[in-house]
Amino acid sequence: MNRHPPPSSPTADTPIGHGLSENPELKDRTLARLRRIEGQVRGLHRMVEEERACAEVLTQIASVHEALRAVGRELLRNHLKHCATAAIRAGDAPADAMCDELVDLMYRHVR
Amino acid sequence: MNRHPPPSSPTADTPIGHGLSENPELKDRTLARLRRIEGQVRGLHRMVEEERACAEVLTQIASVHEALRAVGRELLRNHLKHCATAAIRAGDAPADAMCDELVDLMYRHVR
Amino acid sequence: MNRHPPPSSPTADTPIGHGLSENPELKDRTLARLRRIEGQVRGLHRMVEEERACAEVLTQIASVHEALRAVGRELLRNHLKHCATAAIRAGDAPADAMCDELVDLMYRHVR
Amino acid sequence: MNRHPPPSSPTADTPIGHGLSENPELKDRTLARLRRIEGQVRGLHRMVEEERACAEVLTQIASVHEALRAVGRELLRNHLKHCATAAIRAGDAPADAMCDELVDLMYRHVR
Repeated sequence: MNRHPPPSSPTADTPIGHGLSENPELKDRTLARLRRIEGQVRGLHRMVEEERACAEVLTQIASVHEALRAVGRELLRNHLKHCATAAIRAGDAPADAMCDELVDLMYRHVR
Repeated sequence: MNRHPPPSSPTADTPIGHGLSENPELKDRTLARLRRIEGQVRGLHRMVEEERACAEVLTQIASVHEALRAVGRELLRNHLKHCATAAIRAGDAPADAMCDELVDLMYRHVR
Repeated sequence: MNRHPPPSSPTADTPIGHGLSENPELKDRTLARLRRIEGQVRGLHRMVEEERACAEVLTQIASVHEALRAVGRELLRNHLKHCATAAIRAGDAPADAMCDELVDLMYRHVR
Repeated sequence: MNRHPPPSSPTADTPIGHGLSENPELKDRTLARLRRIEGQVRGLHRMVEEERACAEVLTQIASVHEALRAVGRELLRNHLKHCATAAIRAGDAPADAMCDELVDLMYRHVR
C-alpha cells in the first residue's frame, strides 16, 4: 500500500493535486462520515444481538451501503480531479494506465 | 422498531421461525462478521487520516460493501425461510403484505 | 427450460397462482414494456452508428437498465405472490428450495 | 443531442480522440453486441408471451443487464481514453466539468 507521493512541482498545466492533502475540508468531512458509519455498524451489531426483526436489520444495512456510497462518490470525484487529472496530463502511458484503473475501480466499486 | 414477536405455537406446516432466535449459529456468525466490518470501517478512517492513495481507499470501501452484502444475503435467506414463510402460510392478507415488503426490501437493499 | 406447470386444483390455503397466466394485465403490460425496450436498444444501435457522444450513449444505456429493472421488479413481485407463495405453502422441502432460489435470483438479478 | 465535434488538430500531448470514430473496431464490436442484445430482448418478449416460468424470465433479464454492462464498460473506457482525456488536457475548466460529468455518469450508469 502506498501513501500519496509527495507533491511534485506544479506547472500551469498539471496542478499538483494529490488527493486528500489538497482538500482538508473533504478530509474532515470524510473522517466525520466514517465515524458515523462506524456507529451505524455498531448499531447493527446491537440490533442483531437484540434479535430485532430481519426487515429492520436489512433496512439498516441498506442505510450503511448508502452512507458508504456517498463517501465513495466524493472520494472518486476528488480522485478524478486530482490524481487522475495529474496522471492523464503526465503523458500517454500514465493516462492509459489511469483510465484502465478507473474503469476497474468503477465497476468494482460503484454499486 | 419491533422486536421479533414471541414464537407462536408451531404446527406441522408452519414452523415457528422468528428469525435469529431460531438460528443461534447464524446469529453468532453475523455478530462476528459485523465486528469485522466495524474494524474495516475503522481501518478506512485510518487510511483517510494517513492520506493513503484514493484508489486504495476506494478499493477498501468496495470490500466493506462486499462484506455487508454477504451479511445481508444470509439475513435475507433467513428472513425468507422463517418470517416470510410464516407470513405467507398465515393467510392471503399477510402473504400479500409480506411479498410487497420483500420486493421493496430487495430493491432497496440488494446492491 | 420449463413452461409453467398446468395449474393444480386450488385449495383454500394454496391459491393456484402460476404467474403470468393468472395475471393477463401484467402480461400485456410487460409485453408492451419489452417492445419499448427493444426500441430503445435499436435506438442505441443507431446512436453508436452515428457516433454520438459517449456520454449520451452511456446515459441511454442507463435508461435501458432502468426500464429492464422496472420489468424485473414487477415480475419478481408476481413470482413471489404466485409461484413462491404456492411453493412455500406446499411443504417444507419445496419452501426451502424456493427460498434458496429466491436469494440466488435476487442477488444475481436485482441491481 | 450532439454528435462528436469534428476532431481538432492533434498535438503530441493531446491525441485527437473523439470516441468511436477513432476506434472502428470498437464501433463494430459494439454494434454487433447491440444487435445481440436486441435479439435477447425479443427472446424475452417471446418467453413472456409463452408464459415461461418467472425464474427463467428473471434469469434472462439478468443476462441482458450483464450484456449491457459489458457494452457500457467498453464505451466508458473509450470515453475516458479519448473524450475525457482530451477535456482534462484542455485546461482546468473543461477538466473540472468533465470530472463532474464522469462522476454523475458512473453513479447513474454503472450498476
